Amino acid sequence: MKAWPRAVTELVNQLSRLPGIGEKTAGRLALHVLDAPADYAEALSRALLRVKQEVHPCRTCSALTDQELCSVCTDPDRDRGVICVVQSFGDLIAIERTAEFRGVYHVLRGLIRPLDGVGPESIGLDQLERRVAGGEVRELILAMSPSVDGEATAMYIRQRLASDQVLVSRIARGLPLGSEVEYADRATLGRAISARERF
Amino acid sequence: MKAWPRAVTELVNQLSRLPGIGEKTAGRLALHVLDAPADYAEALSRALLRVKQEVHPCRTCSALTDQELCSVCTDPDRDRGVICVVQSFGDLIAIERTAEFRGVYHVLRGLIRPLDGVGPESIGLDQLERRVAGGEVRELILAMSPSVDGEATAMYIRQRLASDQVLVSRIARGLPLGSEVEYADRATLGRAISARERF
Repeated sequence: MKAWPRAVTELVNQLSRLPGIGEKTAGRLALHVLDAPADYAEALSRALLRVKQEVHPCRTCSALTDQELCSVCTDPDRDRGVICVVQSFGDLIAIERTAEFRGVYHVLRGLIRPLDGVGPESIGLDQLERRVAGGEVRELILAMSPSVDGEATAMYIRQRLASDQVLVSRIARGLPLGSEVEYADRATLGRAISARERF
Repeated sequence: MKAWPRAVTELVNQLSRLPGIGEKTAGRLALHVLDAPADYAEALSRALLRVKQEVHPCRTCSALTDQELCSVCTDPDRDRGVICVVQSFGDLIAIERTAEFRGVYHVLRGLIRPLDGVGPESIGLDQLERRVAGGEVRELILAMSPSVDGEATAMYIRQRLASDQVLVSRIARGLPLGSEVEYADRATLGRAISARERF
C-alpha cells in the first residue's frame, strides 16, 4: 500500500490536531467513521459546524453560551456578590459538578505568561476589573490551577483587586481526598504541612 | 450552570460515540474545537463527509480505496500468488508498515462468531474462496489476531481452502520481541515452549 486513500489521510490529519489524539488513535477513529453508517459522519460533521455557529462567550462572565448571557449569569438564585475566577470553561464545568458553589463565575482566557507575551488584558482581566468596579462584589475566589502560571496569575489578581470591600480567596491546595501521604509528591506534602488547618 | 449550551452537548454526544472516547474526553475535544479558529471545525467537518463519499472497499481484496482497485492490487511488483488474510484494514496498514510482505491482501469484515450469527459469508470468506478458485494462489497467510475468534476463523479457513496447490500458513505466535520471559502471560509462554523453533 503506497498510501492510504487521500480522503482517509486528510481525516487522520484533521483528527490528529485534537489534543491527546496521536496519529495512531486518529487512524483508529477514521476507520471507525468509515465503518459506521453514513449518518454518523454527517451528524458529527453537522455538530462541529453548529457548535462554532451557535456558541460564544457570555457577555458578562465569558462562559460559553448560545444566549447573550449564560445560564449562571441569568439564574436569579446565584449570588452575584461572589465571583469564582477560573482559567477555562472546562474548569467552570468541573466546579459546577461539585454543586458546592452558588455564586457566579468569571472565565479567563488562560493564564498570564509574561515570557510568551500573554499579559493581563490578553486573558480578560480588564473585564473582571470592570465587574469588580461595579461595587456589588464582596469576594473573588481564585480557582486557577496550582501551577507556576496559576499561582502567578492569582497573585497578580490579588495585588490588583483585593481591597477593604473585596475579599480575595484561593481554593485550598493540599493532599487530594483518598490519597496516601506516602505517595504524595514532596511539594504537595510540604505545603500541606506548612499550610495545615486547625482541626 | 443548568446545562452546557445545547450545541456543545450535541457535539459531546457525537464525539462520545467514537471508540475509546468517553464523555470526559469528548468534553475536552469539544472545548478544543470551540477554542480553535472556525476553519478547523470546517476542515474536520469536510474531511468527515469526504471520507464517506470517496472511500470504499477494493473490488478484489476489500482494502479501503478511492479507486476501483486499491494501490496494492494495482501494484505490478506485488506477488499475486501470496494472499495475506487480515481481519481489518487497520491490520493491513500495520503489516504494510513492517515492509516484510510483498504479496497481496484479503481484508475480512471481522471474524466468524457463530454464537452472534456471524458466519463465513458475513465476513467475506466467499469472496476469498472465489479468488483462490482462480488458480493463481500458492499461499494463504492467515494474519488474524491470536484470539479465540481469530484462531477459530483461521482453522475454518484452513479446513476450507488448504489443498495440494494452496499452502495455508499462520503468522508466528510467541513472546513479543523485547519482552521478558518473567512477565509473559502463562498461555503465551506455554505456547512459546510447545511451538519452539529450531535454532
